[in-house]
Amino acid sequence: MAGLDVQHALSAPHGMGGLSPEEFEPILMRLIEPFLPDSVVTPVLCCGMVGAKQGWSEAGYGAVPCTPMGAASPVRARATDPRIAVSILPGLCQADPPDVMRGEETQIAGYLAENPHFDGVICLPGTHSNWVQISAAEVVSFRTTMTGELFALISQRSVLRHSVGAEGWDAPAFDRSVAATLSRPAELLARLFRLRAADILHGERGAPARAALSGLLIGAELAATRPYWLGQDVVILGDETLAALYTRALCAQGLDPKIADAEQLIPPSGMPDSRWGFPSGP
Amino acid sequence: MAGLDVQHALSAPHGMGGLSPEEFEPILMRLIEPFLPDSVVTPVLCCGMVGAKQGWSEAGYGAVPCTPMGAASPVRARATDPRIAVSILPGLCQADPPDVMRGEETQIAGYLAENPHFDGVICLPGTHSNWVQISAAEVVSFRTTMTGELFALISQRSVLRHSVGAEGWDAPAFDRSVAATLSRPAELLARLFRLRAADILHGERGAPARAALSGLLIGAELAATRPYWLGQDVVILGDETLAALYTRALCAQGLDPKIADAEQLIPPSGMPDSRWGFPSGP
Repeated sequence: MAGLDVQHALSAPHGMGGLSPEEFEPILMRLIEPFLPDSVVTPVLCCGMVGAKQGWSEAGYGAVPCTPMGAASPVRARATDPRIAVSILPGLCQADPPDVMRGEETQIAGYLAENPHFDGVICLPGTHSNWVQISAAEVVSFRTTMTGELFALISQRSVLRHSVGAEGWDAPAFDRSVAATLSRPAELLARLFRLRAADILHGERGAPARAALSGLLIGAELAATRPYWLGQDVVILGDETLAALYTRALCAQGLDPKIADAEQLIPPSGMPDSRWGFPSGP
Repeated sequence: MAGLDVQHALSAPHGMGGLSPEEFEPILMRLIEPFLPDSVVTPVLCCGMVGAKQGWSEAGYGAVPCTPMGAASPVRARATDPRIAVSILPGLCQADPPDVMRGEETQIAGYLAENPHFDGVICLPGTHSNWVQISAAEVVSFRTTMTGELFALISQRSVLRHSVGAEGWDAPAFDRSVAATLSRPAELLARLFRLRAADILHGERGAPARAALSGLLIGAELAATRPYWLGQDVVILGDETLAALYTRALCAQGLDPKIADAEQLIPPSGMPDSRWGFPSGP
């Protein structure tokens, strides 16, 4: 973030979904204890699912339109170790249509700190992708799709797991599939099973099927978020591989999105769940 | 099936996905041995995923257009017990767009045996829903959607599992959701996450969320199969609860579908995977 230097970036392989409220502090302490001075209380500022109802302490949501961090106050979380004072940042919510985000508001704040006059749309692709309309330093509205989560479930747990490769890529298959669902979104459910049939009948499996599934779902996301990118200035905040896919898909629609590196804005341990696996990019 | 009486209907809680080829015969024998005479060889005719590549023996596919059972010969499966002679019925395939079915062709044959002059579309809802165009006793074309499988994955394994009840029903929520994806299929991916947000923000969870998820996905299926039902005579072949949902959704579109009871056409043990759970109907 502007004006700050990252001294250490640490991560642990735990997600909010697998932890009880009492388990957050010990996991945090195992990570940061080597760096904690004894003589002063170190403030710890948390963002993301750690503030969900099932997290360490519930931190609520600020209601848009509002600045990404200014709508609600951080919530103190109970910690037993006297060397730390823990606060959790609230997420953002939208009443109608109902929507919520946690963690992304911090990345948005980081981007706006470096680009205070940005007016347009920020796309944060991931397990849950967010499309966020920014005007006058405020989040005006946003829309979330569970694209990455669907990709993981379908590629790993549905009948398509037999056809979709665990790695590899096929750019033309991705492009065709994005175009297919974007132009005819009604066909999505039939096109998904077609990937299985094309494998059984024509041996089309592995990397092309993986890229096609990714393209169908990203195409469906773009269809569901069209007002957020059509004719808009779009900035993509996400890890490099995923940002390249979204850039490719948007460029095919005549856009010229910019990529901002999310890891420069927030340490990656703050977003344990927010990536979905494309082991090799286009 | 016409002219035949079902003497016994037996089932075992095994699916093709969890069995190696050698495990099919012992499971079958545990079910049928009490009824097998010693003195004659009993023919065993199998249909469904038992004939898939990962099944007991691969039984291939007949290519449409063809009669549901006439396109390819049953395949003999290796059995060690001399009291049985096992054959597996092939499925049906379509070259373009690629599609396959297994098991449903037998239900279709059963329906056509009792309704030999039927001309129209048969809908077989389930884990994988099939929409099948019938003309002159042949399957002309068909389209498959993995609707039930998506419902199970999303309701049990995605973030929506916290919001979608394990049981219960809400007919107005179902109707609204079918209408929403059917009229605006492009919005599907945004509407899915909205179910989670509506729970977090407005406490909308349990039965209404379950019915809404079902409605979004059945609406998406109807959007993807519109040429198969718009202006067509539709017969629904499926278990009672599921058939009632599809009837309700199609009636809202001005159709008057008939329901045929699939269990009258084929013993339920032939379709271990083909239902998805609506413990209580509309």
